[in-house]
Amino acid sequence: MIPIRSVPEVLARARDLSAPAVEKALARLSPEVRPLAEYHFGLVDADGSRAGSTPTGKGVRPALVVLSAEAAGSTAEVGVPGAVAVELVHNFSLIHDDVIDHDRERRHRPTVWAIWGVGRAIIAGDALLALAQQVLLETGARDGSRTGAAGAPTGAGAAAARCLAEATADMIAGQALDMAFESLPGVDVARCLSMEAGKTGALLGCASSLGAILAGAELATIEALRDFGVELGLAFQAVDDLLGIWGDPSQTGKPIGNDLRQHKKTLPIAAALAAGDTAASELATLLELDTLTDEDVARAARLVEACGGREIAADEARGRLAGALAALDRCDLEARARDELADIARFVVAREF
Amino acid sequence: MIPIRSVPEVLARARDLSAPAVEKALARLSPEVRPLAEYHFGLVDADGSRAGSTPTGKGVRPALVVLSAEAAGSTAEVGVPGAVAVELVHNFSLIHDDVIDHDRERRHRPTVWAIWGVGRAIIAGDALLALAQQVLLETGARDGSRTGAAGAPTGAGAAAARCLAEATADMIAGQALDMAFESLPGVDVARCLSMEAGKTGALLGCASSLGAILAGAELATIEALRDFGVELGLAFQAVDDLLGIWGDPSQTGKPIGNDLRQHKKTLPIAAALAAGDTAASELATLLELDTLTDEDVARAARLVEACGGREIAADEARGRLAGALAALDRCDLEARARDELADIARFVVAREF
Repeated sequence: MIPIRSVPEVLARARDLSAPAVEKALARLSPEVRPLAEYHFGLVDADGSRAGSTPTGKGVRPALVVLSAEAAGSTAEVGVPGAVAVELVHNFSLIHDDVIDHDRERRHRPTVWAIWGVGRAIIAGDALLALAQQVLLETGARDGSRTGAAGAPTGAGAAAARCLAEATADMIAGQALDMAFESLPGVDVARCLSMEAGKTGALLGCASSLGAILAGAELATIEALRDFGVELGLAFQAVDDLLGIWGDPSQTGKPIGNDLRQHKKTLPIAAALAAGDTAASELATLLELDTLTDEDVARAARLVEACGGREIAADEARGRLAGALAALDRCDLEARARDELADIARFVVAREF
Repeated sequence: MIPIRSVPEVLARARDLSAPAVEKALARLSPEVRPLAEYHFGLVDADGSRAGSTPTGKGVRPALVVLSAEAAGSTAEVGVPGAVAVELVHNFSLIHDDVIDHDRERRHRPTVWAIWGVGRAIIAGDALLALAQQVLLETGARDGSRTGAAGAPTGAGAAAARCLAEATADMIAGQALDMAFESLPGVDVARCLSMEAGKTGALLGCASSLGAILAGAELATIEALRDFGVELGLAFQAVDDLLGIWGDPSQTGKPIGNDLRQHKKTLPIAAALAAGDTAASELATLLELDTLTDEDVARAARLVEACGGREIAADEARGRLAGALAALDRCDLEARARDELADIARFVVAREF
């Protein structure tokens, strides 16, 4: 009988596998960029000294990549370059998002731009994105030649790079839409979900199929795993949206009601504004204020709940989780990896909300 | 006898071939990003109306790519996806550089960030970079499937994507070094040249070999063409550095002595500061000022010349041009394309300096 691994064990195993490869990739960055990237990843402090803390983030994305390689019947190791590339793209987007949103803190530490300025933060993000593509395009290449001709990537590495480029493009489009929403009085729920599919679904869909692509899996397997990841991403984002209003600042590292303060049109807010009753109009009036006081934020949160926004987002999270689990049953996956993917999905959605 | 084409004809032909493909690629961007990208490329005005003006830029990069396909014995058309991808990466870097350098004007028009703000300009640049990779990774793919498995890129498309990712990484490293130089009192000439090799040489080296890579050329051909492009890039940058101090504002679209005002450590400035004589000390003292008046700038320019910086950069441009032309003779290239590459190199370096 195969011993059962808990979710924290599954995440820790994937982190142990991918973290050294991430560090190795970051070490390739130029001396002007590397300290910013290593700081952002929690490897060093702002002064360059080795950080004592554990790596930032829960490591859900790398776990999805290595499990998808195993689910397709390969080894976790085959997924590692994919895990590295997804982490690099995810963190490229975080560094740029912090600049765009003027967020000065992430995970209880100053953000990259808050320490080194906007220009250097832009460059650091750019460098991570280019590096992510390099990592995949070198996978299985016949040699380390820089010309590409002798070092042509394997079909699997190139297919993985294509999947990642598409997911990155979709993620950027989602982020652009999210920004556009901030200046709109309200957005319809369908458009909000389409934004979230881009912003979060695309990269999780890519992460959940990238290991299988690197393993050379069949199309049906890759597509089922990708659908699992997209659904999981939407569930994850719905939970994030709830935490963006009602999350405990000591857990989220952000002020309470942060999404309301920043005029985000996340799912609960968009759904509440669409309710059309007097509470919705009162909410709309409040959110038109340039700056919300703590009292305004608390009142807005109560109004979102009264308009049904909280329940709609919670339903969305549960429904997408069910969709994710159903996708896993659509094809023949290695049993243990499949069960661990399902456990991760339940774990992600079960965060306090 | 093959009729001789002038450099403007060669550039126009490459532009005619690649411009529709660039437009088609930009049309894939999301509605929130596309207008910014099309504005930056000179296709539309800021209000979205069709711009009457011709496309911005001379189109040297696309010409290098299509000529490199022809030089390797293939057709210009084979190089077109490469020309598109290089243009996208080049313009990604321009959009981000304008944010980083606080430049409010480029080519006599307001920059993207000056119109739409820093956040949207960051996103627009990011979107161009992701799109560039997509374009190459779709080249020759067996179908349009999004999963990568059925749509695996051809070996040549993937090798091209790898070459571009490496060049992009080198370019970003060069840009990071360039920024770091601004806060240093002086830099040695070797380090300055290494920065310029990254900032300009890498992408021109990629452009000059990308068509050959897409054509499936032999390694020796690809390497000779890449070396040609790297040398050309260094020649180009030396000329640019001269124009950054002595260029006619009506031609450069930037204030006279712009690089001095911005505390750049370009080749003529680095070389002048390294001269070690009294003029060099006077120059160093001037450049320590946070803000330079027009008079300071004029005085600094005279000092750079007196210290030999102008002559060193001009020699560098001539020497690198010779190196570029020599690289073309290192392997067996199709004669007409080879001659046109050589003509472009001479043309680029012959700009007023």
